[in-house]
Amino acid sequence: MPTYHKPESKTIQELKDVAHKLRIHSINSTQASKSGHPTSCASIAEVMSVLFFNTMRYKISAPRDASSDRFILSKGHAAPILYAAWAEAGLFPVSDLNNLRKIDSDLEGHPTPRLNFIDVGTGSLGQGVAVACGMAYVGKNIDKADYRTYVLVGDGESAEGSVWESLHFAGHYKLDNLCVIFDVNRLGQSEPTSLQHQMEVYRKRLDAFGFNAIVVDGHDVEELCKAFFEASSTKDRPTAIIAKTYKGKHFPKIEDLENWHGKPLGDSANTVIEHLQGLIRNAGPIQITPPSPQKDSAKKVSISNVQLATPPAYQLGESVATRLAYGTALAKIAMNNDRVIALDGDTKNSTYSDKLRKAFPDRFIECFIAEQNLCGVAIGAACRDRTIAFVSTFATFFTRAFDQIRMGAISQTNVNFVGSHCGVSIGEDGPSQMGLEDIAMFRTIPGSTVFYPSDAVSTERAVELAANTKGVCFIRTSRPNTAVIYDNNEPFHIGKAKIVKQSANDTVLLIGAGITLYEALNAATELEKSGVHCRVMDPFTVKPIDGEAIVQHAAACGGRIVVVEDHYKQGGLGEAVLSTVAGQRNVVVKHLGVEEIPRSGPPTVLIDMFGISARCIVAAVNDILKL
Amino acid sequence: MPTYHKPESKTIQELKDVAHKLRIHSINSTQASKSGHPTSCASIAEVMSVLFFNTMRYKISAPRDASSDRFILSKGHAAPILYAAWAEAGLFPVSDLNNLRKIDSDLEGHPTPRLNFIDVGTGSLGQGVAVACGMAYVGKNIDKADYRTYVLVGDGESAEGSVWESLHFAGHYKLDNLCVIFDVNRLGQSEPTSLQHQMEVYRKRLDAFGFNAIVVDGHDVEELCKAFFEASSTKDRPTAIIAKTYKGKHFPKIEDLENWHGKPLGDSANTVIEHLQGLIRNAGPIQITPPSPQKDSAKKVSISNVQLATPPAYQLGESVATRLAYGTALAKIAMNNDRVIALDGDTKNSTYSDKLRKAFPDRFIECFIAEQNLCGVAIGAACRDRTIAFVSTFATFFTRAFDQIRMGAISQTNVNFVGSHCGVSIGEDGPSQMGLEDIAMFRTIPGSTVFYPSDAVSTERAVELAANTKGVCFIRTSRPNTAVIYDNNEPFHIGKAKIVKQSANDTVLLIGAGITLYEALNAATELEKSGVHCRVMDPFTVKPIDGEAIVQHAAACGGRIVVVEDHYKQGGLGEAVLSTVAGQRNVVVKHLGVEEIPRSGPPTVLIDMFGISARCIVAAVNDILKL
Repeated sequence: MPTYHKPESKTIQELKDVAHKLRIHSINSTQASKSGHPTSCASIAEVMSVLFFNTMRYKISAPRDASSDRFILSKGHAAPILYAAWAEAGLFPVSDLNNLRKIDSDLEGHPTPRLNFIDVGTGSLGQGVAVACGMAYVGKNIDKADYRTYVLVGDGESAEGSVWESLHFAGHYKLDNLCVIFDVNRLGQSEPTSLQHQMEVYRKRLDAFGFNAIVVDGHDVEELCKAFFEASSTKDRPTAIIAKTYKGKHFPKIEDLENWHGKPLGDSANTVIEHLQGLIRNAGPIQITPPSPQKDSAKKVSISNVQLATPPAYQLGESVATRLAYGTALAKIAMNNDRVIALDGDTKNSTYSDKLRKAFPDRFIECFIAEQNLCGVAIGAACRDRTIAFVSTFATFFTRAFDQIRMGAISQTNVNFVGSHCGVSIGEDGPSQMGLEDIAMFRTIPGSTVFYPSDAVSTERAVELAANTKGVCFIRTSRPNTAVIYDNNEPFHIGKAKIVKQSANDTVLLIGAGITLYEALNAATELEKSGVHCRVMDPFTVKPIDGEAIVQHAAACGGRIVVVEDHYKQGGLGEAVLSTVAGQRNVVVKHLGVEEIPRSGPPTVLIDMFGISARCIVAAVNDILKL
Repeated sequence: MPTYHKPESKTIQELKDVAHKLRIHSINSTQASKSGHPTSCASIAEVMSVLFFNTMRYKISAPRDASSDRFILSKGHAAPILYAAWAEAGLFPVSDLNNLRKIDSDLEGHPTPRLNFIDVGTGSLGQGVAVACGMAYVGKNIDKADYRTYVLVGDGESAEGSVWESLHFAGHYKLDNLCVIFDVNRLGQSEPTSLQHQMEVYRKRLDAFGFNAIVVDGHDVEELCKAFFEASSTKDRPTAIIAKTYKGKHFPKIEDLENWHGKPLGDSANTVIEHLQGLIRNAGPIQITPPSPQKDSAKKVSISNVQLATPPAYQLGESVATRLAYGTALAKIAMNNDRVIALDGDTKNSTYSDKLRKAFPDRFIECFIAEQNLCGVAIGAACRDRTIAFVSTFATFFTRAFDQIRMGAISQTNVNFVGSHCGVSIGEDGPSQMGLEDIAMFRTIPGSTVFYPSDAVSTERAVELAANTKGVCFIRTSRPNTAVIYDNNEPFHIGKAKIVKQSANDTVLLIGAGITLYEALNAATELEKSGVHCRVMDPFTVKPIDGEAIVQHAAACGGRIVVVEDHYKQGGLGEAVLSTVAGQRNVVVKHLGVEEIPRSGPPTVLIDMFGISARCIVAAVNDILKL
């Protein structure tokens, strides 16, 4: 273990001065914006000073350099001091800080990657540690590089269970390149935190979760320098620095008092700033510079032009579950690009992500039953374009991580989410396991692409497309086997539907996806017997949906659409279709979907009982023909 | 502390026999259904035997008796043994167990309250402890009754952060009437759990989270009897019984082996049953009966006909935020019914739930920053109709608990969720804090009611209606002040819209809610100047939406609708409106909503920048008049 050398007293003094300068910037910028959280900045001033001017190795010329240390401010509301630290480090003029929260500034109320020094958006609490775990896992096991990851967590947010999922993950995988700093400032938004300053409780918990847990005075820069050194030289377990701090530290008549959360100092600002200036020894420019990263510790990688190693290879009519085709395609793209990784939450033998694990065990991350951390780790793993991440679990269990996925979009993530076991067609396991709201959820994600492939060929192409598509992608897969209906060389495009059955005499357009596409085909065959001809459309992507094709084919079918989905009626395929025809007069839509909580039973019985079977489609067609 | 008396050896033997009988039932029922989780049942057979035949105080004649002990099977996939325990206890014929998972049986794959002995649906893992905490909190602090709450958690699911949120809650509030049993059977679905049989790690973690943590051999009924006794006589902290068990215990060639998760025993069943029968000493009817609860320990309460203590009292035109009106109404209904409670996640001074806390501190539960537990505790608190629970936080942070809310619907909960700070109109805090997907989320919940009141009067009535409405209710409140537009005595009904502006010459129907209702009114005023008359509708509830009024007024306005919402375009008010007019020819809809990730800035600037201001509505009206 290397020996710790205490910084020179000049350095110590300068780090103290920097902390106060950052405090002053935090006060001034929130005074200018008339909103924000200066007291939450004050408690972490010394931590920020030491991290940015003594401990972290990074390049001002390339804030997202692959080989540099990472920093995540999980308590995103302390954004002003983060911006101040980067400004003082030289990234942009300190005067810009006064643009905080203005409409034409990217110095937003909470950090987002619109800023070139931010990896992920924070502000929904308790998510930073998972992202940091993803970065640290990739650094240690995939990049095998020496960069370290630091994440700063508020004590209030440490009540979030997601934090403990991630701490367990970090302990389990012995992420010794990860350092989690807890800012224990005792006060939440509306009252003191439940643990207040019980430092020993924090220590015991972190120790029990597999951490090297160090309690420090968070306002003592010397103690902090030493603790960060200890963190970087501790092997085989991550370190937690548990900093005892005070909210509004060094703000006279405000420090450690309630009712100062999220409030600029107002009339008290000048007095406080004067006080802080009095604490500064060297008011001139900062002399110390942070250490540099090891050049090219993380090698250059390519995450573009990902292709299936071999094209789909199925027989028409062959019965294959789309979830199985997902696993097959995942392994194929991983064969062609060594940055493809997969993550799962102990469902890999159901989602078939285990096909990647079997082929490339080093590129599979088992996250156990903890979906919030699962998604957060994936987001972290994909940061700085280090990996192409595919995350899978049952579709409905992504509801557990809706907030993480929502923040993922704000973080400009490119993670691909794959949800199996959608709809009532899973059968006997019952409603708790059925994905019936997953399309609605993923459609709300700005910039998302929602794939709902119906057969194995289109599923393989969906995986290939998702790997190359920016933003959040979601692929919905089904549990039952379905017939292969496309040729192996059929091309697929995002936002382009397929017509799988048509004639010159069609009077109704049927739209279905997954198992309901097959029900629609069966209904069309049945209706033909009574002389009613239906056109059948497979949308392939629900978002973007092929509005042009829907409008055109609806017009060709007398303006009649029947759309049917194995999903609740709200927010799914049906409403996506309705949105595309909103501006059309003379189009009517009949929408079949699940309208109540389903139950356990055989898939075919459930499909009929909950109104989405071929029989129900036939009835809907006969109804809509009267309109 | 009372003294422990070891059960007689006859009782011990019988408890052992019961465990094996329950194992046999679990095998037989999953053989009949050809699916299910017999090995996950086997690991908890002794725990179930001791709980149901020695420890818990309950009445077979009234499984949901208010004064009885509660039991939650958090690892819901072990349902067959739970059903078997109730059957052996005499609630229904043992022969019914063979109807497991059949379409016409309520003995579903995972438990739901369709069964009269189930309080909440389980099967999405890691949610049981929160519900149990809600029950225990109410038992100790509101009912002040002596019933106890038991919850059985799988080791796999203990990786869920939600579990740790709840354990922290239980420790913080010293819920000594709560006993959490961990079934540490070492094996997950697809591989061993991360901690396997590291019992000491579990013990340290639970100790650090404030529990009396007892490690036991989970297959030793004597140890279990003693541990449960210790739990019930431990004061000022909850007890965790950490049971070392084996998956598939006493199933020869299956016990403790991988690849047996979620699989009936198939050809091995007969051999295993024969082996188990050999372990049973007394194959006849069970002789022991469980102890009875203390009669009327929990008093009778009424949760119906809740009314505002005083009617709304505003001036027309007065500027009041709907979030503030929520707090006012909450305190008023609490004044009239002592079972109204409120829960919040450290945002009570923003959501205004602190108005209830100020009036009735004993009926407010601070859950700190842990939204999954917050929602789970509320669901538990509302079980057996003990309370009328209102849960509040920022609307967007309910995404953190989507899975809990989804399971809440399966659990037939009546909890009311109130989300403040919706949309871009919150301003400078930026996108991480803006609720822009909350309507979509709550609309997917089966049987839900979604209120979106626009002024203070309608908000107060929404609160009153929600308190009296079964199923999940969601009330969306806004941060900015809005003008009071309704008389204090205006009546409101679920599913009934209000027309707030109309003339005989209207050519477009404008639909808005919250701040967009006011933008619509402003647009209508502006358009009048150029001779264009618009009708303006306040839907009041987005689900159910007043389809009849929409169709009727749209027809009166030339079949033209402009709908505008401070929400993403997917799954919100706009698509709800589109669904109601799906069957109408000659109706066109123009839909304005947020289409990309917003940013920090002043509310009025954001409203215009993201396309939902009066100016944008005017443009949309001019467009739609061409259709």
